[in-house]
Amino acid sequence: MASKLADYAGLASRLGMDAVALVPGPNFTRMTGHGFHSNERPLVVVVPAEGPPAAIVPNLELRSFDLLDFPGAVFDWRDQDGYQPAFEALARHMPLGRLAVEGQVMRVFVHHALAAAYPGLDLVDAEREISALRLRKTGDEIAALERAIAISERALATVLDRVRPGQTEKQVEQMLIQALFAEGAEDLAFPPIVAAADNSARPHAAARPDYAIRAGDALLLDFGARWGGFCADITRTVFVGHATDEALEVYDTVLSANLKGHEIAKPGVTAHAVDDAVISVLESSPFAEHIRTKTGHGLGREVHEAPYIMRGNPQPLEPGMVFTDEPGLYRPGGFGVRIEDDILVTETGCQSLTTFPRELIVTAS
Amino acid sequence: MASKLADYAGLASRLGMDAVALVPGPNFTRMTGHGFHSNERPLVVVVPAEGPPAAIVPNLELRSFDLLDFPGAVFDWRDQDGYQPAFEALARHMPLGRLAVEGQVMRVFVHHALAAAYPGLDLVDAEREISALRLRKTGDEIAALERAIAISERALATVLDRVRPGQTEKQVEQMLIQALFAEGAEDLAFPPIVAAADNSARPHAAARPDYAIRAGDALLLDFGARWGGFCADITRTVFVGHATDEALEVYDTVLSANLKGHEIAKPGVTAHAVDDAVISVLESSPFAEHIRTKTGHGLGREVHEAPYIMRGNPQPLEPGMVFTDEPGLYRPGGFGVRIEDDILVTETGCQSLTTFPRELIVTAS
Repeated sequence: MASKLADYAGLASRLGMDAVALVPGPNFTRMTGHGFHSNERPLVVVVPAEGPPAAIVPNLELRSFDLLDFPGAVFDWRDQDGYQPAFEALARHMPLGRLAVEGQVMRVFVHHALAAAYPGLDLVDAEREISALRLRKTGDEIAALERAIAISERALATVLDRVRPGQTEKQVEQMLIQALFAEGAEDLAFPPIVAAADNSARPHAAARPDYAIRAGDALLLDFGARWGGFCADITRTVFVGHATDEALEVYDTVLSANLKGHEIAKPGVTAHAVDDAVISVLESSPFAEHIRTKTGHGLGREVHEAPYIMRGNPQPLEPGMVFTDEPGLYRPGGFGVRIEDDILVTETGCQSLTTFPRELIVTAS
Repeated sequence: MASKLADYAGLASRLGMDAVALVPGPNFTRMTGHGFHSNERPLVVVVPAEGPPAAIVPNLELRSFDLLDFPGAVFDWRDQDGYQPAFEALARHMPLGRLAVEGQVMRVFVHHALAAAYPGLDLVDAEREISALRLRKTGDEIAALERAIAISERALATVLDRVRPGQTEKQVEQMLIQALFAEGAEDLAFPPIVAAADNSARPHAAARPDYAIRAGDALLLDFGARWGGFCADITRTVFVGHATDEALEVYDTVLSANLKGHEIAKPGVTAHAVDDAVISVLESSPFAEHIRTKTGHGLGREVHEAPYIMRGNPQPLEPGMVFTDEPGLYRPGGFGVRIEDDILVTETGCQSLTTFPRELIVTAS
């Protein structure tokens, strides 16, 4: 844990902050090697630019926190006393003027507790800089991602073998979830999306218990296993029984855009440039009005993390980054197609960690 | 949705606030009838004390948001433009001075976006008051809880049949997860706790891949299915092969405390009084030093919600409230015992929704 703590102390220093505060979530897990639940009991680790760290820990978590061999002061609190006294004790122990926090992880009640304990505290959202320490994956992290992806692809093969007209979206979703755990998933990376026909035109659709899949439907599956703390995220869109000419044309367009992502990604190319190249393929098609989303997002301990593959993001790709390449077209009231791969940036180019076939699949035919 | 919106408008008025802001999470789902992912893209619904509501919605979620028949202005934003302009547009459309938010759900980056768009905004943490609208469960909500619990109890029976010495905690956890989905879970209510021997003395232990269960071990299973948006939460502690005299004595003590909760809960009794009665049983035992936690917490759309069953909480129980009764004793380096039931407060007393036997079970014997 010592070398990881040094990462965050160094970051505090570079940002001109007195300290970085982490709460349970992906950065906390990276730093400590242990996950804690994010719940109604605040747990905060503060890593100053100089000197030992300190932590606020719910008393009932102390035995779990002990596993961290945490090299600093720990201020615990019990339910019957509330957490504010622990924040006051921290403030006496470690004066702070400027504190960097994870804006997309820390919740308002922790912000308020810090502000009450530290009058005049400048609490700065440094989500991007803190999470940037997770951008380049290590060999172990890539191996965990590969295992999560292998589990996911085996589950997908099982489900596509079993999909039949007449099953509801919800039934297919349940089949997919069971297949993921049967293949070795430790958790779901996120609630799966299983959407047919017009529902597939909603990028984040919820599976319907009352829609039975029909021959000719598009069927979009977007899901992933979590293994070793890392998230797979794969989408394939198949057609049930048969595919119309329109379906074939839309599918080919999305596939061309997806393949453009594989072609262009390499170190030094910006997230902007990747998105621009991929989305340009869609924009120059007859279906440009059905674009709804950017190309993708980083993938690791969280299913959505940096680098965000979108126009305007000047972030250059670096070896070890992993991101999704998931262009899609969505015609409201019609259907949607998305093809999503997980791409690792290598020293010289990129490699798709997802290897499930991308060619159009007609199932149950 | 109109009657639900009126709940939050009325709350804003009672609190002397201009509006209530909800972000994706349990209150949002209750209000709208639809769940949205909480991710890097802010989505906020603002319900003023007077007049129609307004929303900030990521453009790619618009088709899903359409399902809500939302009766107010919607300010959407696209990834390439960022979200701040949508907050500025909201501020021009709906001036606000005092805004109630969910402090345990809203994250700091949304807080900052609101603060930047509304200079001088008084952003008040009204988590307790907002979530209080979920305290008394409806008949449909109780039916969903009962179904989640039935799924969980069937999965527990399956696992207890199959547990054997030599299996690792992690293997038992995976067996449990697969059984939950096989029985019809739509999701896990939370990552299950499966902890044997000394690990069971950690109230929120993580399953170890490298600890093989041995005869004589305590084995604590704390888990639940989610069904219809509602969470089961049940704990049973069993002994593998045989139980020591110490184990029997500790178990009896915890069981007596658990049963005290069933005995005392009824409308008008405070959360304080329930916790005091339950914990007093443990305090008057020879094992008082091994108390780590309060009696329990409310249960519904979230696995931890109000009412928190703890000393100092003056909240009186009301019919329709559901809470966990989960006293435990935890001897570090030794073992822990927790027995957790889900209790519904009725008009005249209470009813345990969990019905799995509470008597000491020796498995694999």
